[in-house]
Amino acid sequence: MPRFFVNKQQITETAVTIEKPDSVHIGRSLRMRIGDEIIVCCEGTEYVCSIGSISDESVICNIISSEISRNEPNVNVTLFQAVPKGDKLDTIVQKAVELGVTKICPVLTSRCVARPDRKSFEKKLERLNRIALEAAKQSGRGIVPQVTELISFEEAADMLAENDFPIICYECGGINLSQAGLKADSSIGIFIGSEGGFEKSEVELCVSKGAVATGLGNRILRCETAPLAALSIVMNLTGNM
Amino acid sequence: MPRFFVNKQQITETAVTIEKPDSVHIGRSLRMRIGDEIIVCCEGTEYVCSIGSISDESVICNIISSEISRNEPNVNVTLFQAVPKGDKLDTIVQKAVELGVTKICPVLTSRCVARPDRKSFEKKLERLNRIALEAAKQSGRGIVPQVTELISFEEAADMLAENDFPIICYECGGINLSQAGLKADSSIGIFIGSEGGFEKSEVELCVSKGAVATGLGNRILRCETAPLAALSIVMNLTGNM
Repeated sequence: MPRFFVNKQQITETAVTIEKPDSVHIGRSLRMRIGDEIIVCCEGTEYVCSIGSISDESVICNIISSEISRNEPNVNVTLFQAVPKGDKLDTIVQKAVELGVTKICPVLTSRCVARPDRKSFEKKLERLNRIALEAAKQSGRGIVPQVTELISFEEAADMLAENDFPIICYECGGINLSQAGLKADSSIGIFIGSEGGFEKSEVELCVSKGAVATGLGNRILRCETAPLAALSIVMNLTGNM
Repeated sequence: MPRFFVNKQQITETAVTIEKPDSVHIGRSLRMRIGDEIIVCCEGTEYVCSIGSISDESVICNIISSEISRNEPNVNVTLFQAVPKGDKLDTIVQKAVELGVTKICPVLTSRCVARPDRKSFEKKLERLNRIALEAAKQSGRGIVPQVTELISFEEAADMLAENDFPIICYECGGINLSQAGLKADSSIGIFIGSEGGFEKSEVELCVSKGAVATGLGNRILRCETAPLAALSIVMNLTGNM
């Protein structure tokens, strides 16, 4: 069944108003008709709805039933991702959303080859959030994970430390993710480096703030493979995969 | 240190002969010189060598030391991958090699949208094995995982069953990979569907031959994400990541 995401303001007790461009998509691309059923998601709740009216401007849907999304993991995972070269961040965002990430924070670390400033990154951000939305629809998420603005290494280190389980994946080793004691119903932060990995001093700073350095095996993973491996393992260890 | 793969015939007690095109690459692209050190891998053994002579035709290396590759996982994992659309198999091969796969068998299942015949797949195969070689070099593998010729679903089901742990990832659920009792020093087969997943009858046939159906969580993973998630989890559960 097609899945759409809306804001709280678009929902009343009994109905949901879907606006452009989704309304156009429903009427023209999907050629849906009055009475057809769709799923509307809002902040982790899924509403099964029946379409009551369709125009290019809006689609009004009558709520048939609602439930907390069963597809959302029981952990809140933030991926702090050092910005890689080219369009690798597109792939990382798409796959991370499928794998159940809650938020993605692009970070500028010392070994980032691509060094956009916050301003020029804003254009990219719009595309990244569009990719996150599409991946959320496609994979059946109950929320749309947000890609935040570009943050500095220091900001990332502080935000990472706010998680119940702050983890930095270090190519020069650390404990195994299985040994990190991850638990369901917790917040987990995962910090992944760019092509060149992390400076030792960066890892030390994160560890001094409470993070745990973990390795991802002896093989050298590309910077777009590492976050997907780490997320898969974290979701498995917490019973979400 | 640069890493090259050779066959057994290229190694004696004391020396390794590296042939074209690697010899050209060493002399011209990498501009290496006599006395420089490189790593040569052969069937899971790594040889630290010192270059003794360089020509376009061959590079003769003197073996300094050798050891069993520490980068190889303690499990032998074969990925049976239903052929996806476009060039997604390229990505899957590259990432699977990084994650420690031993062999990749492309399979034609009933829901494959792309339906190459064995003959036309041969051209693709050459490229896929080149991708595997490059990924093996880059990720520091001790072997070059082989991408085999295209096999039928029935062949795959039989080959899957030969593993100590035959697993089929089914989008309609199954046990969690953590419950499969995976052990180190074993052979593990993982069967992943194409875009449309598996027919129920295909899963039933594999299960009747001894395979275990496992789920990968409630979210719908793209067919190129699923093998990477499964491999990451399997490597974690067996202590290799």
